[in-house]
Amino acid sequence: MASPKVSPLPHIVVIGAGFGGLAFVRHFPAPAARLTLIDRQNHHLFQPLLYQVATAGLAAVDIAQPVRTIFGGRPNLEVIMGEVTGFDLPGKRVRHTRGELSYDYLVIAAGGVTNYFGHPEWEQVAPGLKTLDDALRIRRQVLCSFENAETESDPAKREAAMSIVVIGGGPTGVELAGTFAELTRTVLNKDFDRIDPSKARVLLIEGSPRVLATFPPELSASAQRQLEKLGVEVRTGMRVEAIRRGEVVAGGQTIRADNIIWGAGVVAVPVARQLGVEADRAGRIKVLPDLSVPGFPGVFAVGDIVTLVDAKGVTVPGVAQGAMQMGRHAARVIARELRGEKLAPPGREPFVYRDKGSMATIGRSAAVADINGVHLSGYPAWLAWLTVHLLFLIGFRNRISVLLQWTYSYLTYKRGARIITGLSGEKSAGSA
Amino acid sequence: MASPKVSPLPHIVVIGAGFGGLAFVRHFPAPAARLTLIDRQNHHLFQPLLYQVATAGLAAVDIAQPVRTIFGGRPNLEVIMGEVTGFDLPGKRVRHTRGELSYDYLVIAAGGVTNYFGHPEWEQVAPGLKTLDDALRIRRQVLCSFENAETESDPAKREAAMSIVVIGGGPTGVELAGTFAELTRTVLNKDFDRIDPSKARVLLIEGSPRVLATFPPELSASAQRQLEKLGVEVRTGMRVEAIRRGEVVAGGQTIRADNIIWGAGVVAVPVARQLGVEADRAGRIKVLPDLSVPGFPGVFAVGDIVTLVDAKGVTVPGVAQGAMQMGRHAARVIARELRGEKLAPPGREPFVYRDKGSMATIGRSAAVADINGVHLSGYPAWLAWLTVHLLFLIGFRNRISVLLQWTYSYLTYKRGARIITGLSGEKSAGSA
Repeated sequence: MASPKVSPLPHIVVIGAGFGGLAFVRHFPAPAARLTLIDRQNHHLFQPLLYQVATAGLAAVDIAQPVRTIFGGRPNLEVIMGEVTGFDLPGKRVRHTRGELSYDYLVIAAGGVTNYFGHPEWEQVAPGLKTLDDALRIRRQVLCSFENAETESDPAKREAAMSIVVIGGGPTGVELAGTFAELTRTVLNKDFDRIDPSKARVLLIEGSPRVLATFPPELSASAQRQLEKLGVEVRTGMRVEAIRRGEVVAGGQTIRADNIIWGAGVVAVPVARQLGVEADRAGRIKVLPDLSVPGFPGVFAVGDIVTLVDAKGVTVPGVAQGAMQMGRHAARVIARELRGEKLAPPGREPFVYRDKGSMATIGRSAAVADINGVHLSGYPAWLAWLTVHLLFLIGFRNRISVLLQWTYSYLTYKRGARIITGLSGEKSAGSA
Repeated sequence: MASPKVSPLPHIVVIGAGFGGLAFVRHFPAPAARLTLIDRQNHHLFQPLLYQVATAGLAAVDIAQPVRTIFGGRPNLEVIMGEVTGFDLPGKRVRHTRGELSYDYLVIAAGGVTNYFGHPEWEQVAPGLKTLDDALRIRRQVLCSFENAETESDPAKREAAMSIVVIGGGPTGVELAGTFAELTRTVLNKDFDRIDPSKARVLLIEGSPRVLATFPPELSASAQRQLEKLGVEVRTGMRVEAIRRGEVVAGGQTIRADNIIWGAGVVAVPVARQLGVEADRAGRIKVLPDLSVPGFPGVFAVGDIVTLVDAKGVTVPGVAQGAMQMGRHAARVIARELRGEKLAPPGREPFVYRDKGSMATIGRSAAVADINGVHLSGYPAWLAWLTVHLLFLIGFRNRISVLLQWTYSYLTYKRGARIITGLSGEKSAGSA
């Protein structure tokens, strides 16, 4: 370190600037400890809108905010852009790509990565959607694919270039499929001479019997109807057997498509293994009810990296709300201990998840929402979704910019972010 | 081709969707011929603001617009995203990465690339600024470099990480140096704990005796004063002898800097060689006064790919204005011929450049402008620059978005685009 600051305050290291890590820093009283927040990226990503970047509705910077800006001026906080490489829990130390940190408390909010369920080779041919670079890669690929179709003389190849297969019928898959159908039918359809993008095939494949399986069945059915109205072919109960470049084998059929997108699952970053603590099959740490890691009362884990049935018997879902509430809870527990309320882990306040409802958007004026048992579909659900997401977007500029772009898109059916970049760095189909 | 359209109209192929190619299409009467516009990218780039993307002031999509959108709905126009690979001028054919085109008229508006003056190896260590990917690469490198400095314990390495050397004192170099000085002193300076970015070194190196050599000497002097006021070290009459990773040798000195940016020159894309026609040292085609290529009255070249002393003895400068005026001229000449006014090349209307003035911006409220001999400096020049660039920006959304971001930056001294992406794809210093 350049000039190590000597401080009598206890030191808390927070790993990850996602929803969980950010909520921790937000809710922790600044004077009570010295905080170090470390993340691989220099920005917080508003993941619920990542699909909008992938589908050319928003620019990358609209949904990301530099971490240093978010907490600019906050005392007792240091931000490091770096990747954690190892832990020494008994010695209370964390190693990262730029050095080492010792801590009094550790908050692990490292999040998740795309889960290919034992097929890591599929990543090359079916990109997932977890980072800005993922979103830009998908956008580039789909837009280039339609450029290929425009000059392709072989009808079968042209059809494959105009086919988008989305694997996974959860919120991400539904959002991607719906928005791609909309993009081809209301935006790209005006742009080409030889092909008719409104005839593009958008296929959503889900292994379980219905899309949005965590929603009430009535809303799943509504979501499927809304998707089909937009032109999406929905195939439920269909298992993917193989994925190759330009080809998906599912339900015994071979589907040719130049655009295959993986929206099927999330697995915790492989931290549990490094920590040597117990985890579930998705690599999520089994924390105690107070969110601490068993055997290490000073180590907390929050967000997608955690699996937990809360004190009321509810399995905490891997969504932004869950991560934020856990981050806040950890902040409260640690702050109380530092104020002198010494409580052994079993006596520490257990975490209780408060379900504020779930929503999934499908397209323009199309969505489903389940808010405290009130089920909404279509336009009212979409309005609710829009309001909530705008209110939650971090940072003034982003909110205005996103509002502006949505209004523009809504009125004109154009999409501002339809720019293909990064061709020189990547061997993409479009540069061939 | 998918389904070749048979048309009795003459066919004009336009290569390049920069200012020259766009102006041609804009000004050519749509019913008079069938047009095919081909470009490597899917977007037109507003190059005068590219330095703003490199310095984290604007997002990539703010200064780019899909070509298909710009001309959406225009009859008799086809857009191809592809790269031209060869010419058959006698046979009137153009080969490209997706096929081949025959033409009646050809308009070459392929533009320029960064000129390393015989040192192509410098490209790896000193990126130029011609494409969106260049700008994003520079942004990523500089932002990562300050992240490196924050955790660097070796003072010499820390200083190198906080040093930015801009080579070339033309408008691009001046804009980059001024804006980087501003970025470090008014934006980044609030963000870090251990380093003081306002102490970052920004060095502008120019080989000739003054910056902005094409401007009146009085404005060059003013630009240098404004740069120095912002904290830029300006070194004129200093020749660059060598560039290595992290090191520039110039004027006998070795300067250590992790950020080296090349703003020193532009050379025509290597089309003249492929065409087999006469070119100058920078590869620019020596066109006839009517902008046609000698020996081929149906082939025109416009913009940065051309070198020309116009009918009034003025050397047409390689700026957007020049390219746009040439594109319009070629459109007029071809349209007149197609209306039956058959004029042999020597009798065709010669091109005359109309100098509408030149401007260079240096930073917030800092610029110089020379408009019909009226010399402006500082705030008035900056206001003039701002107005002209907003008015010229293509596309409604971009204009609003840019205006919004500039207003936001002006009022808050923040920069919204300070997001580092693309780390996974590139072995950058920040991911080490």
